Amino acid sequence: MSVIVQKFGGTSVANAERIHMAAAKAVAAKNAGHQVAVVVSAMGHTTDELVDLAKQVWGSHGGQPPKREMDQLLATGEQVTIALIAMAIHAQGHEAISFTGNQIGLLTDDKHQKARIQQIDLHRMRKELDAGKIVIIAGFQGVTPDGDVTTLGRGGSNATLVAIGAVLHAEVCENYTDVDGIYTADPRIVTDARKIDRISYDEMMELSSVGASVLQTRAVEFAKKYNVPIHVRNSQHDKPGTWIVAENKAMEHIVVSGCALKKDLTRVALKGIPDRPGIVAQLFAAVGQANVVVDDIIQNVLDDGTANISFTVEHGDVADLKPVVDKKLVEFGGGTAMYETNLAKVSVVGVGMKQSTGVAAKMFGALADKKINIQNISTSEIRISCIVAKNDAETALKAVHAAFDLDKASQP
Amino acid sequence: MSVIVQKFGGTSVANAERIHMAAAKAVAAKNAGHQVAVVVSAMGHTTDELVDLAKQVWGSHGGQPPKREMDQLLATGEQVTIALIAMAIHAQGHEAISFTGNQIGLLTDDKHQKARIQQIDLHRMRKELDAGKIVIIAGFQGVTPDGDVTTLGRGGSNATLVAIGAVLHAEVCENYTDVDGIYTADPRIVTDARKIDRISYDEMMELSSVGASVLQTRAVEFAKKYNVPIHVRNSQHDKPGTWIVAENKAMEHIVVSGCALKKDLTRVALKGIPDRPGIVAQLFAAVGQANVVVDDIIQNVLDDGTANISFTVEHGDVADLKPVVDKKLVEFGGGTAMYETNLAKVSVVGVGMKQSTGVAAKMFGALADKKINIQNISTSEIRISCIVAKNDAETALKAVHAAFDLDKASQP
Repeated sequence: MSVIVQKFGGTSVANAERIHMAAAKAVAAKNAGHQVAVVVSAMGHTTDELVDLAKQVWGSHGGQPPKREMDQLLATGEQVTIALIAMAIHAQGHEAISFTGNQIGLLTDDKHQKARIQQIDLHRMRKELDAGKIVIIAGFQGVTPDGDVTTLGRGGSNATLVAIGAVLHAEVCENYTDVDGIYTADPRIVTDARKIDRISYDEMMELSSVGASVLQTRAVEFAKKYNVPIHVRNSQHDKPGTWIVAENKAMEHIVVSGCALKKDLTRVALKGIPDRPGIVAQLFAAVGQANVVVDDIIQNVLDDGTANISFTVEHGDVADLKPVVDKKLVEFGGGTAMYETNLAKVSVVGVGMKQSTGVAAKMFGALADKKINIQNISTSEIRISCIVAKNDAETALKAVHAAFDLDKASQP
Repeated sequence: MSVIVQKFGGTSVANAERIHMAAAKAVAAKNAGHQVAVVVSAMGHTTDELVDLAKQVWGSHGGQPPKREMDQLLATGEQVTIALIAMAIHAQGHEAISFTGNQIGLLTDDKHQKARIQQIDLHRMRKELDAGKIVIIAGFQGVTPDGDVTTLGRGGSNATLVAIGAVLHAEVCENYTDVDGIYTADPRIVTDARKIDRISYDEMMELSSVGASVLQTRAVEFAKKYNVPIHVRNSQHDKPGTWIVAENKAMEHIVVSGCALKKDLTRVALKGIPDRPGIVAQLFAAVGQANVVVDDIIQNVLDDGTANISFTVEHGDVADLKPVVDKKLVEFGGGTAMYETNLAKVSVVGVGMKQSTGVAAKMFGALADKKINIQNISTSEIRISCIVAKNDAETALKAVHAAFDLDKASQP
């Protein structure tokens, strides 16, 4: 029998009414003849409230509360939701059974607060699905082989959704959110942005990495690896949303599928660094350990035996980054650091780019027409990104969206 | 090294400040050279709030939400507290680690909402205690061999306290509450009631069963079985409370240790029931299945081949009891039921009664002096109880307390 896995985020289970709406989606899929598993997040602002409780207890004590105990605390949020969804399904006349990460043997490594899924024990889930029950699973959480509760970090519930979909060989992972799907651009900025019907895993990953926030890169990567289709759709109605699927021939006709914007970037420019082998590797290793993601790296070696390196980071990471950079410059024995804030990155993504020419030229032309200065360019096989001033960001996104006719492009 | 197990009830962990006070008690015991395990309840009104959430989801659907899912839901309350207490102890500079019922292998049967403890896996607790950590354990919850979360029912956290104390061979189980200990009578009624310093397990069980609400009969029974002393004390200060211990010679000199009152009793009088063998057993089996506790049973067989049976129940149970009784009377083919409300029971308890005479006479005399009519009498080896009108209840308790000089009796 075909399996459908559904996931409901925090706003889709925020209160008793929403919980019943989510339960009804699961029951409808069951009545349509599928086996149904449901992954849920914590209700509404529950996670924030638990974090606040921890802060009250931890008080002005330095550092952070022990991560193991934070995970023990936060995992209760999803546990509340699974029990309530199971009750709602019973109230609607169907059988359901709820499981924590521990109860379905969702094993992870022991990196608390950002654990990685290693294994899922199918036995209990299969037994209950085969008995005709709707199985409800707490997202975002797992357990170490020692039995310690872990959480999967940001977007962890989507990782759970795709992992459950993979082990159950699901026909589809339905990701219910409060938007209608993936758009050709952020509809809050580009009013004629259009919902995309189908998009490839690679395009979705690129869009996520350059600013589309609906789905995390990691979850999509996992879905691609196990070839599980994800259907992003709105929990408030039944209309189809966006299918994220394996690339196919038809998609190649779409040169650009969507565009995205990442605001609040800072460019870090390091000047006069001694040009010794391994120096760049040391620098970025230290930056990575501070959990700061860098992008748009440019390095020039000058005649005087020094190098200039620049890269961009999200503005929110600058506070974590600065001490790391300062320490490294002292170790290197030279160099200065400058921070240029108020930058943004506008990107276009499309698998058709691989077979098409002139995409970059069209994008640069669209920006030039609006007198927008391009400060840096970076590309992948299916993406082109330009760094622009933050003040130009929204104008740039609209210009690019219009240049590629994204409001009317037909889908494969 | 000696082990102390402490338990903090809901009001003792109701907010961040109280949680730090509880943590400080654990740290003080650790600093005094003991290994320390701490059992905690859900914070303040958390359990009520979770029950309310379930009611909202269950709505006007008949019956009750599935018990397995209620347990899954309610167990989150204690899980929140254990994480916060562990954080508070870390903030106070000591190591602590929290465990759910599942994580310490606290196995129960599968009677959801009133599960019984069957086994506790010592391995993980021992390892952490020996590593110098304070071990924090979620009270009130366990897990079936299949991994389903269970709760232990009313007073379940005290059952956890005593069970943990038993397996760790604890020197004492400290039960922290918001009162100073066990009193010779309810101090809200009898103003000169005195805190009892030491009381035997049997006396405590009798007092609990006739109205003293600090500690459940079941937890004391378990403590007696494994000979673990319980120290009931106030979490707001460091003064000694009441020790509940094995009976000793000195206790025999105290004829009456305390008295208690149970209000809101209803007497059920069944008349004209066919006097056939097994009829009474069938009746009380059905009543027991409805989870109604009966007491003070009197049966008379009349010349006409019928029997009269009367017994008392708590008034709150009458709604559950009535349909059971009505059904049985139909099955029996005869008989009527009358319900007499507004009764109360006043009791005196003391191990010294076993060796002493005249206790009953003194009690009846004290009630007669106040012109209080005794409607029924029941006794055990160490207890005498009288049913009186609810209006006379508090006067009766005061009279009995005074007659036995409980305000000034010395303790063994």
